Amino acid sequence: MPDGIPASQPPFDPLEGAQAGGLAGAIPFVYGHPDPDLLPVEKIITATERALRARGRLALQYGPEQGYGPLLDYLIGKVERDEGLSITRANIVLCAGAAQGLDTAARLFTCPGDVVLVEAPSYHEAIATLRDHPVKLKQVPMDDQGLVVEALAERLEALSQAGRRVAFLYTIPTFQNQAGITLTAERREALVELAAEQGLLLVEDDVYRDLCFEGQVPPSLYELAGGRGVIRLGSFSKILAAGLRLGWIIAKPEVIQRIVSCGLKGNEGGANPFVAHVVAAFCQEGWLEPHIAQLVARYRTRRDALLAALEQERPDGVRWTRPAGGFFVWLTLPEPLEAETVLATAAERGVLFAPGVHFFAEGGGHRNLRLPFSFLSEAQIAEGVRTLAEVIKEQGSRGARKQGSYEAQSSKVVV
Amino acid sequence: MPDGIPASQPPFDPLEGAQAGGLAGAIPFVYGHPDPDLLPVEKIITATERALRARGRLALQYGPEQGYGPLLDYLIGKVERDEGLSITRANIVLCAGAAQGLDTAARLFTCPGDVVLVEAPSYHEAIATLRDHPVKLKQVPMDDQGLVVEALAERLEALSQAGRRVAFLYTIPTFQNQAGITLTAERREALVELAAEQGLLLVEDDVYRDLCFEGQVPPSLYELAGGRGVIRLGSFSKILAAGLRLGWIIAKPEVIQRIVSCGLKGNEGGANPFVAHVVAAFCQEGWLEPHIAQLVARYRTRRDALLAALEQERPDGVRWTRPAGGFFVWLTLPEPLEAETVLATAAERGVLFAPGVHFFAEGGGHRNLRLPFSFLSEAQIAEGVRTLAEVIKEQGSRGARKQGSYEAQSSKVVV
Repeated sequence: MPDGIPASQPPFDPLEGAQAGGLAGAIPFVYGHPDPDLLPVEKIITATERALRARGRLALQYGPEQGYGPLLDYLIGKVERDEGLSITRANIVLCAGAAQGLDTAARLFTCPGDVVLVEAPSYHEAIATLRDHPVKLKQVPMDDQGLVVEALAERLEALSQAGRRVAFLYTIPTFQNQAGITLTAERREALVELAAEQGLLLVEDDVYRDLCFEGQVPPSLYELAGGRGVIRLGSFSKILAAGLRLGWIIAKPEVIQRIVSCGLKGNEGGANPFVAHVVAAFCQEGWLEPHIAQLVARYRTRRDALLAALEQERPDGVRWTRPAGGFFVWLTLPEPLEAETVLATAAERGVLFAPGVHFFAEGGGHRNLRLPFSFLSEAQIAEGVRTLAEVIKEQGSRGARKQGSYEAQSSKVVV
Repeated sequence: MPDGIPASQPPFDPLEGAQAGGLAGAIPFVYGHPDPDLLPVEKIITATERALRARGRLALQYGPEQGYGPLLDYLIGKVERDEGLSITRANIVLCAGAAQGLDTAARLFTCPGDVVLVEAPSYHEAIATLRDHPVKLKQVPMDDQGLVVEALAERLEALSQAGRRVAFLYTIPTFQNQAGITLTAERREALVELAAEQGLLLVEDDVYRDLCFEGQVPPSLYELAGGRGVIRLGSFSKILAAGLRLGWIIAKPEVIQRIVSCGLKGNEGGANPFVAHVVAAFCQEGWLEPHIAQLVARYRTRRDALLAALEQERPDGVRWTRPAGGFFVWLTLPEPLEAETVLATAAERGVLFAPGVHFFAEGGGHRNLRLPFSFLSEAQIAEGVRTLAEVIKEQGSRGARKQGSYEAQSSKVVV
């Protein structure tokens, strides 16, 4: 368990409570958090010292609304190098994490009563962030290739016929939080084409892009759309440290200009100037790239451990996603099992997870559960999956009994 | 001029541009910013090192939504010690600066179409922040004792008769930004009483409280209201460093609970965890109190320099406020002078200021100008006022001539 966990733990709530902590004595498949063992504490101390010694008076003062210029330039160079994507300062603004980026999109680019579309499932904190704005959330299903574009087209058509304005689609196309699925290249083309036809703004949450375990990440929606109609959110939370609260927004110049000139940006004097100077110093030392490589290696090992444990236990009838990056594996239980019933028993045996129902804006997910692998050791992962498979086996057996199918007691059926 | 000012300056805009910079070769009575000479750069380096060495894994991770507990406890102790105000953790939440606090109030405690009331004048960035929400801003006049409570009562009555819901009044009762005026104790009582009668929520921006040059700061509206119906915003921006982006909100438990459980708080994992740990380490070392004392001494000297220069130059017919704390002196020019006309000539002579028109939600301020004294040396202040008085004298003379009053050329009339 990480250092610094408070001695007393809050009552378990799979989605709330002490975010940094973890739960003593339990295996929490709960936190979609970076591994605290990999936080570059000493390097951030050094970067702080260098940044403040060199230009403390700028770093500790209100900054320009767009954010600290040299960090913007580093990010411009990064997307050029990693993706061959050419942008300028007119296309980028810093934000206080992708969280602020999404909140800003909701504040500036919706009108009261608008519909905002989200994937089913989607990131629960994004759903909660959007719900604090006077918009109505509607969901669009995913399959194992990501968002179902035909279903989006149908939903748009139905909303249009009902006279509803759709402000934007919030989508996490790469290593999706929660499902771990990556929208295929073909689907991306289709999505961008449909969005252009329908004038649908896309808010692309792209915070897991760098955590790619194998193969190539498909081009971003922003790139495929030639920058038109896409607001792309990036973040240092997953690739450096979530506690820094620093991210960026890439979009066309008019969108960036609207964000840069919004009231909050002027009021705050840009996103976290002190942190931006520290992160710029960290990146300018060349420390980010090897750090990301280390994260990828670690998370790949954990993803592998989780998939291997699932393969070994093979809980009967359970399906799961095989993420090529990111933090999450998504399980679907066979009927008649329900994730919340499984959770109740698993929690008694010290294994916690978030049931899928939390991740749907309009319902669903009763048979789903999310297993983040970023925060747990391989040993915890193996033990957790073993316990989970046991519970699923027992409940599958009981569920079958309840339905009167006594054959279900045979080991063949329930595994 | 402070270190770190970019070599190339943006075109002058009295309210925008590079916030941290200042303008080379000019005397910018523009920035309501802390003095960069007083930023405790070395102590923040040390605090960062201590915080990260002691608990880097917590500081760099997502934190609890309410904010880092030991910093909350420090702030609870601070208001008890400084104001005799007794609050608990149920009454406080960290936020990413008072800017985020105000934005949060607008996001969570307004409905589309609501009216939000602001003082005339008010903080322009607050006005801009509120304008990004679907509310309508209306203003309430101030006099030299602060907000005119009778005028507020009339405005509320008229709005009620027009069927408009008022979400809240945003007020800066102490060392007001922009006017430098402090709402008197009697007016505070009357305001709190009226608000209670009318069910009017008060958002009390209290970020200058600690920068008191003389006398006692009257009790906060929060205290007078017994905590009911007041959301009080505090900040480290003016008393430690604006680039840190850290503040706090004090309110009754139900309000705090709503803020703590809002989507953005969960999404960001609390307000700036890294910075909160650094600031907590700074405060726990006992460094904040002497730092504030140093700031008060410096800003008092500058306030004195500005008032002395105004007394000495005595531009005819000009009235000004005499702030007992904070950053701002507010001037009113005699008719027929206009602040923007004065600015045009003053800027040619290297003296910049923000004309009053920017600070009114519904118009006004043509004869007002704002002179912040926090960011300028005493020499700059003296020289700036000299130039300003010259321009006012010339334009007063010309204005009088235009009106055909040739007597106005006499030195007696135009000074």
